[in-house]
Amino acid sequence: MEKPGKLLIGRRRFMLAAAAAPLATTLPFAQAAPHDPLPSWRNGTAKKAIMDFVGTVTNTESKEYVEPENRIAVFDNDGTLWSEQPLYFQLYFMIAQLKEASPRHPEWKNDPVFNALMTGDVNAIVKQGVKPALELLAVANAGMTTEEYGRKIDDWIHFARHPRFNRPYTDLVYQPMRELLAYFKANWFKNFIVSGGGIEFMRAWARHAYDIPPEHVIGSSIKVEFAMKDGQPVLNRLPKLDFIDDGAGKPVGIYRNIGQRPIAAFGNSDGDLQMLQWTAGGKGARLLGLIHHTDRQREWAYDRGSPIGLLDKALDEAYAKGWTVVDMARDWSRIYRFE
Amino acid sequence: MEKPGKLLIGRRRFMLAAAAAPLATTLPFAQAAPHDPLPSWRNGTAKKAIMDFVGTVTNTESKEYVEPENRIAVFDNDGTLWSEQPLYFQLYFMIAQLKEASPRHPEWKNDPVFNALMTGDVNAIVKQGVKPALELLAVANAGMTTEEYGRKIDDWIHFARHPRFNRPYTDLVYQPMRELLAYFKANWFKNFIVSGGGIEFMRAWARHAYDIPPEHVIGSSIKVEFAMKDGQPVLNRLPKLDFIDDGAGKPVGIYRNIGQRPIAAFGNSDGDLQMLQWTAGGKGARLLGLIHHTDRQREWAYDRGSPIGLLDKALDEAYAKGWTVVDMARDWSRIYRFE
Repeated sequence: MEKPGKLLIGRRRFMLAAAAAPLATTLPFAQAAPHDPLPSWRNGTAKKAIMDFVGTVTNTESKEYVEPENRIAVFDNDGTLWSEQPLYFQLYFMIAQLKEASPRHPEWKNDPVFNALMTGDVNAIVKQGVKPALELLAVANAGMTTEEYGRKIDDWIHFARHPRFNRPYTDLVYQPMRELLAYFKANWFKNFIVSGGGIEFMRAWARHAYDIPPEHVIGSSIKVEFAMKDGQPVLNRLPKLDFIDDGAGKPVGIYRNIGQRPIAAFGNSDGDLQMLQWTAGGKGARLLGLIHHTDRQREWAYDRGSPIGLLDKALDEAYAKGWTVVDMARDWSRIYRFE
Repeated sequence: MEKPGKLLIGRRRFMLAAAAAPLATTLPFAQAAPHDPLPSWRNGTAKKAIMDFVGTVTNTESKEYVEPENRIAVFDNDGTLWSEQPLYFQLYFMIAQLKEASPRHPEWKNDPVFNALMTGDVNAIVKQGVKPALELLAVANAGMTTEEYGRKIDDWIHFARHPRFNRPYTDLVYQPMRELLAYFKANWFKNFIVSGGGIEFMRAWARHAYDIPPEHVIGSSIKVEFAMKDGQPVLNRLPKLDFIDDGAGKPVGIYRNIGQRPIAAFGNSDGDLQMLQWTAGGKGARLLGLIHHTDRQREWAYDRGSPIGLLDKALDEAYAKGWTVVDMARDWSRIYRFE
C-alpha cells in the first residue's frame, strides 16, 4: 500500500528546496494533475462532508483547527471497512476452530450456540450475539499461546475463501474506505479500528489490508496469562472472556486503548451508536459517518430488521442529528478493488 | 519539545533535492557539527549499548534490521523515567484524593491501608502493594466522570510540590531518559509507557513531559461505564479495579494495548522483570535496560531491601544475561534538567 503521508512530505520538501535553488527551471512534480484523494466516492453530500471536515480541522486559520496529535479517527470493522454478509467473517474462522476442537469437547453436542454455528443458522447465531461464540472460542483455544493463535489466524486468512465471491476475505475490504483511511493518514490523522470482533483476529491482517498497525486495533479479547514455557516467556490464552468491545463497550475500549476522544467515527450498526455518541460529545468539528448498506447488486442491501448489522436506532439518530449517512449504492462508484 | 524525527526528514530531503540542483554550490545544513543525541549520558558501556543497538536495527544492511513499524520500545515510569522517592509520586496524589473523600467514608477510620497512607508509613504502604491503595482511590472517586477526574490530576500536577526539591513533580523527570526517548523517536521508534501506576494519572502529563501521547500510555485502571448524563455522553468511574499493570501484568498490558512484542524495554525494579523477559524472548536484536539507583547525592541510592523500587531478581537476571545496567551515578552526567 502506498503511504500518502510520506509522499506528501516528500512533495512539500521538494518544492521548498526547489524554491531555494533559483536556477532550477523545471518543477516536474508541481505540474501533476489535481489529485482526488477519494476517487471511488461519487460527488455528493457524503464526500463533501468528509472533505469539508478535513479541510476545516487541518486549516490553521480555522477556529476549529485541530493539532495533528489530536486527530483521532475510529472505525468499526465489520460492515464499515469490509463486508459482513452472509455472516461476520470472523465467525467462519471460529467455526473452523470449533470444528477442530470439537473431538476434545463432547459436552458441546447439546450446546445451542455450538449447534447454531455448525449448521450456519444465521438467525440463531445473531440472536445469541457474539459473546457466547467468543466464549466457546476461548474454551476451544485455551492453553494456546498468543503466537500459536496468531499463526492459526494467518493460515485461515491465507486459505479461506468467501462463499459468494470465492476470494480471500481481505479482498472484500471496501475500496472507498481504504481511500478514506489513506486520506486521513495523509492529513496526519491516526486511524483506529474499534470493533466487536476479536482483537487478535483483526491485528493479524489490519496492517496489510488497511495500513493500520496492531497497536491501533481495539477489539473484544479473552484473558491471557504470562508464563514461562520450556524456558521461553509466553502469553497463554485462558478459557475466559476479558472484554466485549461492542455497543456501550466501545467508548470504554477507546478510553482503555486511546485515552482521548476521537474527532471522527464511522460505523454501520446499532452496535456503533455509543461510539458515535461519545465522539459527537466532544467540542469542535466532528465527522460522524454511518455506512448504509443499500447495494443489492454489488454488495448486500440491509438495515432495519436485518439479523446481521442491525441499523435501527443509529440510523434514526443519524438522520435526526445530521450525521453523514453514506449510501453505498449512491455514494460509492466502486465497492471492491477487484471490480 | 523539538521533534527530531521531522528534522531528520527535512535534512535528508534537503540533501536529496540539493543533489538534484547541480548549480547550487553551498550546502549549509550539511556542515552542522556532529550531534551527540545523548549529551547527558557519559561514555561507557550503557551509552555504547544503546547507540550500537539503534545503529544495528536501523541499518538496512544489517541482518538485524527492523522495519520502523516494528520498532516498539517500552518504559516503566516510576524510577525509570522519573524519580519515585520517598514514595511513588502518584501516592501523594492519592493521599490528597482520599483526604478529600474521607468525610464521606467514616468506615475508612479502621482501614489499615487508609491509615498507612494518612500517616505516610512507607513500609506499611509498600508492604501492602499498590493494589489496595488503587482500590481505595477507586472508591474515593467513584461516580466521577473520566473528564472530571482528568481535571483533578491536572490541578494536582500543576500545584503539588516534591517534598525534597520543592518543585513540580514533573521537574523530576530524568533528563538522560528524555534524551533517550527523543533519540528513539528520531529513529522512528514508537515509545510506550508500561507502568503499574494509574493510566489516567500518567496520560494527563506524559505528552508534555516525555512527548508520549495518551494512546501510548499503558497502566493500571479502574472500571468505567458509558452513560448519558444531562444529555451528554460520559464515562463514569466505578468503585472497582479493572487491571493491575505490574509484574506479570505488564506483558498482558502490552498484548492488550500494543499487540506486538517490543524490541527494547527499560525498567528499574522486580515489577519490570516479566516485561523485560517478554521483550528479551523475541527474535533479533534486543535492548534490555535496568536503571540502577546508585546516586545518593543527586537522587537516591537503593536497590536490594529498599521498600520502594525493590530491585533483586531483576538485577540478578540482568547481570546473568548481560542486560544493560544503567548505573545512575556513573552513567549519567546530569540527572534533572534543573541541575
